[in-house]
Amino acid sequence: MARIVMKFGGTSVANVERIKSVARKVKAEVDAGNQVGVVVSAMSGVTNQLEGYARDTAPLFDLREYDVVVAAGEQITSGLLSIALQEQGVSARSWLGWQVPIQTDDAHGSARILGIAGEEIVRRMEDGQAAVFAGFQGVDPQGRVTTLGRGGSDTSAVALAAALGADRCDIYTDVDGVYTTDPRIVTKARKLDKITYEEMLEMASQGAKVLQTRAVEMAMKHRVRVQVLSSFEDTPGTLVVDEDEVVEQEVVSGIAYSRDEAKITLTRVPDRPGAAAGIFGPLADEHINVDMIVQNVSAEGGATDLTFTVTRADFDRAMKLLRDRQSEFGFEELRPDQDVVKVSVIGVGMRSHAGVALTMFKALADKGINIQVISTSEIKVSVLIAEEYTELALRSLHTAYGLDAA
Amino acid sequence: MARIVMKFGGTSVANVERIKSVARKVKAEVDAGNQVGVVVSAMSGVTNQLEGYARDTAPLFDLREYDVVVAAGEQITSGLLSIALQEQGVSARSWLGWQVPIQTDDAHGSARILGIAGEEIVRRMEDGQAAVFAGFQGVDPQGRVTTLGRGGSDTSAVALAAALGADRCDIYTDVDGVYTTDPRIVTKARKLDKITYEEMLEMASQGAKVLQTRAVEMAMKHRVRVQVLSSFEDTPGTLVVDEDEVVEQEVVSGIAYSRDEAKITLTRVPDRPGAAAGIFGPLADEHINVDMIVQNVSAEGGATDLTFTVTRADFDRAMKLLRDRQSEFGFEELRPDQDVVKVSVIGVGMRSHAGVALTMFKALADKGINIQVISTSEIKVSVLIAEEYTELALRSLHTAYGLDAA
Repeated sequence: MARIVMKFGGTSVANVERIKSVARKVKAEVDAGNQVGVVVSAMSGVTNQLEGYARDTAPLFDLREYDVVVAAGEQITSGLLSIALQEQGVSARSWLGWQVPIQTDDAHGSARILGIAGEEIVRRMEDGQAAVFAGFQGVDPQGRVTTLGRGGSDTSAVALAAALGADRCDIYTDVDGVYTTDPRIVTKARKLDKITYEEMLEMASQGAKVLQTRAVEMAMKHRVRVQVLSSFEDTPGTLVVDEDEVVEQEVVSGIAYSRDEAKITLTRVPDRPGAAAGIFGPLADEHINVDMIVQNVSAEGGATDLTFTVTRADFDRAMKLLRDRQSEFGFEELRPDQDVVKVSVIGVGMRSHAGVALTMFKALADKGINIQVISTSEIKVSVLIAEEYTELALRSLHTAYGLDAA
Repeated sequence: MARIVMKFGGTSVANVERIKSVARKVKAEVDAGNQVGVVVSAMSGVTNQLEGYARDTAPLFDLREYDVVVAAGEQITSGLLSIALQEQGVSARSWLGWQVPIQTDDAHGSARILGIAGEEIVRRMEDGQAAVFAGFQGVDPQGRVTTLGRGGSDTSAVALAAALGADRCDIYTDVDGVYTTDPRIVTKARKLDKITYEEMLEMASQGAKVLQTRAVEMAMKHRVRVQVLSSFEDTPGTLVVDEDEVVEQEVVSGIAYSRDEAKITLTRVPDRPGAAAGIFGPLADEHINVDMIVQNVSAEGGATDLTFTVTRADFDRAMKLLRDRQSEFGFEELRPDQDVVKVSVIGVGMRSHAGVALTMFKALADKGINIQVISTSEIKVSVLIAEEYTELALRSLHTAYGLDAA
């Protein structure tokens, strides 16, 4: 007997037939003697439709009202799944954000969870009633509806698993686990049985779409065992766990990539203290997130080239700001490049193994792929390369690190 | 300066363009210096879609979960209208049933309003903020979402008008007021400037679809001045008011008709005390509502013919019950007839005028229309006739009572 939280995304509850199929999965866990909480997203397409209504009504809408509108999507699914469960003989009831309550701050549209009062729900789960939660939503201190932002249902699920003292949080999705890299590109990609929180966090923030970064952060903070598995196939997924649970750690666990990068180079920036801060400060003020940064010490005294990356969504705004303030910042030329991709190798084993970066550089050099920018963290090496080499780089690195399936 | 509640039905908020148009109507009232509450239905089609989902998920669904599902419709509209109002410079916020709160009993799917705490909202209306209420919904004593049943948004509007101490409750709909009879059938039908609560109640319960019976009952109980008017035309509507506000009362104010009737005749029912109760008791136990009843004292001793009407929705169940228990009830023959219509003339003036029924019988006789069943109340005479005479009867009666437009 275990207490588990199961989370189903939009494609898993896309229509009534799939909702019934989700109910069968939940029933199987209940029949196995488990106490079950279920977190559901809106039926796929519904959130986009509701967002569209809000945008069509006013381009700059009040986020408090936007939250009222879009939270309806998960509300509908929670009621329907409860009906489907009852139809299959499983005692169940729906719980909206304000009913639990899932207390959040009042940052509407991307609220953060402050606390969850789970006692009553635990009591009911112990009595055999499945709790069906509307994901993605909460309630702020003023009693108004909030939503948690994109992918918020993953965060709801992990937060509820923590609050309810669940033994496991199963994230059902349209892939069957976390892979060493994108299996659509690298056919030899392998599904991982286990991955550590830290690695999953890097995978998520470096472009792997399988789990939301915030959900992984929360799982790591509260030590919630998360499993990523398929809604449509009946196979074991990938467990996201503490480092000491992974017995035989590979040096590199996975390779992520992100096409969401754009590179900007400023030539001949004055080489004096505070020059970089003078440029990155105004960018930060405009909420433009700068990721990788390289500054070359120039041979010719007094000036240096500065290269950095921003997300493609921020690219136009960044370019405008830089052009507008060219004379103030004092650079000579602005060289943009959107045809880049960031490739990252990730693994907690790097901490105790030397030469990981070297393997990467050699593998890329062997294929004639030029590295434009490098950045590293304790468990990650990222490089920026020309986008046209994405597939070649991923396949080469996957082989170089011994990740290929037998 | 007045405090008003405005209610807009599904066709009035059918899409984003119409929601913006509703916002303009609300803004006009705000600009005129009024304090405004607005009650909205779901966008037309949405409630049916959500009901369909629930039915497809399970034929016999839990009404508590059904309420969670369908209440999402009005929630969406309340958020969108608030956004539209803000876009037009009107301070506004949405209020869901549980936020007000609109306390109801726990008769899910058709809950009754128990109380509304309006103080905070009145304070905000006095400060110039328009309150946008999700109609049709409330919250039960256990904190679960309830809905008020078909046409519930009218009831929400009248109840809120009473709780907020509103001077008027304007029901915007797709017709521009209450007519002497259905203008689609009788081209000479006239829009009434005023109608009494009692008459409106009879009109609504005798088949006029313009206002829900429950809403009229509540308006009468709390003496809420209700106005029925068009969402799409800018003309005055019909005021539903106290009898003493109607200065020159016609004898007959309106003529309603209902095709939702089916007639059943039982021949040669034993003519002894308790025979009728023995038949109508079991029908009531099955929640089959019997409307008109006629019992003929038979010439031949010991047996009588019994005729009554039920709604067409209940007809099949009533017939089955009667057939199953024919020997117990002791009648000879079962004669059903679904091709009937109930026509009612309504007016508080009847109380002080004799001969109203006679005028009706003569007018119908002049056209050769046979009256099958008659029932009367203090302010109403209803007759059951063959359905094929519906239009002829309405036109003849409209002329006979002097209601034709000049």
